Amino acid sequence: MNIESRITTEIAFDTVRPIEWIDGSLRLLDQRYLPGRTEHLVLHSIPEVANAITEMVVRGAPAIGITAAYAIVLGAQHCQRQYPDRWQQPLEDEIQTLAVARPTAINLHWAIEQMRTVLRTINVMDSNAVASLLSAAKQMHAEDIAANHAIGKFGAGYLGESSVVLTHCNAGALATGGYGTAIGVIRSAYADGKIKQVFADETRPWLQGARLTAWEMEQEGIPVQVLVDGAASFLMQQQQVDWVIVGSDRIAANGDVANKIGTYALAVAAKHHGVRFMVAAPTSTIAMETAAGEDIPIESRDASEILSTSGVTSSFISAWNPVFDVTPAALVDVIVTEKGAIEQPDAEKVARLMAS
Amino acid sequence: MNIESRITTEIAFDTVRPIEWIDGSLRLLDQRYLPGRTEHLVLHSIPEVANAITEMVVRGAPAIGITAAYAIVLGAQHCQRQYPDRWQQPLEDEIQTLAVARPTAINLHWAIEQMRTVLRTINVMDSNAVASLLSAAKQMHAEDIAANHAIGKFGAGYLGESSVVLTHCNAGALATGGYGTAIGVIRSAYADGKIKQVFADETRPWLQGARLTAWEMEQEGIPVQVLVDGAASFLMQQQQVDWVIVGSDRIAANGDVANKIGTYALAVAAKHHGVRFMVAAPTSTIAMETAAGEDIPIESRDASEILSTSGVTSSFISAWNPVFDVTPAALVDVIVTEKGAIEQPDAEKVARLMAS
Repeated sequence: MNIESRITTEIAFDTVRPIEWIDGSLRLLDQRYLPGRTEHLVLHSIPEVANAITEMVVRGAPAIGITAAYAIVLGAQHCQRQYPDRWQQPLEDEIQTLAVARPTAINLHWAIEQMRTVLRTINVMDSNAVASLLSAAKQMHAEDIAANHAIGKFGAGYLGESSVVLTHCNAGALATGGYGTAIGVIRSAYADGKIKQVFADETRPWLQGARLTAWEMEQEGIPVQVLVDGAASFLMQQQQVDWVIVGSDRIAANGDVANKIGTYALAVAAKHHGVRFMVAAPTSTIAMETAAGEDIPIESRDASEILSTSGVTSSFISAWNPVFDVTPAALVDVIVTEKGAIEQPDAEKVARLMAS
Repeated sequence: MNIESRITTEIAFDTVRPIEWIDGSLRLLDQRYLPGRTEHLVLHSIPEVANAITEMVVRGAPAIGITAAYAIVLGAQHCQRQYPDRWQQPLEDEIQTLAVARPTAINLHWAIEQMRTVLRTINVMDSNAVASLLSAAKQMHAEDIAANHAIGKFGAGYLGESSVVLTHCNAGALATGGYGTAIGVIRSAYADGKIKQVFADETRPWLQGARLTAWEMEQEGIPVQVLVDGAASFLMQQQQVDWVIVGSDRIAANGDVANKIGTYALAVAAKHHGVRFMVAAPTSTIAMETAAGEDIPIESRDASEILSTSGVTSSFISAWNPVFDVTPAALVDVIVTEKGAIEQPDAEKVARLMAS
């Protein structure tokens, strides 16, 4: 087996890779079954990948973006075989179904636009078309990991000795090309000897914190305790948290942050308790065309994702299941990107970073 | 079957009774299996009841108190048969195991003290001893329901037309002798036509909101939507909540409130959003001997209650599982009891109410 895209580095505590390009196919670690089972799905077409994104085989904004980039390579392979002299339009039709697989994460759109830019440079009869697209997808993947290493380093710089960090959902290797954003900061700070303890919100309804973040911490040997989401404020009340560190699915031009439902509650509680609040994300998560948080579409998923856990089957009882929430920039102490950090973010500072 | 203790009333929306005295035994609705299965446990001894309380067959501070009172009747029956001329000391020994079944809810201690007071008036050879104790337990049960009707009426007085109420855990009929405290307020306000919508936090890890509160709302036909605990702040951000209404397991003399983990997070979020925060509880929940919240023992339960949901079995990963948290009086707009309400509670106002 030729694991072409397993990108390894000399960075410590960097062992998890959720997305791999193997023998002309895309192999995803199926995150729905962690930590109980380590299963992989091998995918061969855009419709298969779009479905895997919708069904949360892979999740996390940067990971969705990279997955989409590889999906476009799969689509090009398929369309080129089927329509050798006019494969680009059928490919564009497939890309459009990919673009709507999940609405909130901007990285999906960003990655698709990057690949479209490459596509526009390729002649329809170019025999290297697929190779060019694959090279672009791999570069995006490698750059995401490199960005996370930079984010980790910048973010760790904010942490003091013996820090206790609370994180929400999973903004780890599993949510990115590798290493992670929020968890990249934790990995980097742990390598620097600055982490005393990580607390992971279990993160209902999908339990990404308990299932994925705790599993990643275990892979690296970083001490972790899980708590129910409702206990985070009580933990802060007991002065046990130095930093809340989270990722993001979309950062608006004014610094408002969309992230997994429950993030906003943490930001409100952090402000109340004087706990510092960091958002770690690559610049591909910053959507300059989205003016403010209120302009971010918030995905709602089926009520059964909540109610099935409780055994509720009554049609009388419904559930409100927004998957993300929006934290106003005013509650964020610092946004850390691969290009540097923005303290007390606002529109002007975000614009300056993006132009740098 | 002689359902001696089914206490019915003329009050509307009052159909659920979790605790019944039937044919000399205690019958509990087993709340671990709702809403999937409606099962009852029939108990005959104090050890059986103590175990049922620890295992959460019955939960909710007032319900635990009433259950303990009936348990003492069961214990008296048993001890009197076994030690006719010296049954009171063996009974006291059993009561002490009952008293430690759960540590936080003060109503357990309160109910035991009430029954001890009755016990002290009974001569060891009195053939009516069990009947006297049963009468006291039934009176406590009836008074709890009456208290909840009064709480419901006082609390509903605070609500405006078309109110949207968010509640946490289950402070309903299932948590009390019947009717409920927080849900008593909702029931009463709904009867007055003031409730537009109830939101129920699912309440991890035991899911009492999704399993029990939503089920109670269904029994009464009151519109309810479940949400994950982490979504409550986002709901408030969207200006969709008028009141947060919760029960309590223990209220300290200064007005600090212990309640299900996650309550404090709601209080912090309510303050941030200008949403009003009501605690509904009978005066049996107010512990004048507990000076402040920091003096309330907070039960911690096994990590598996959290981790099993996520399929985490690794010994590397632990969980922090405090079952209750403490909301400072300063975050509470009003405590509603059967004796009346205390707005902006403090030690002086609590003392005045308790002396009235």
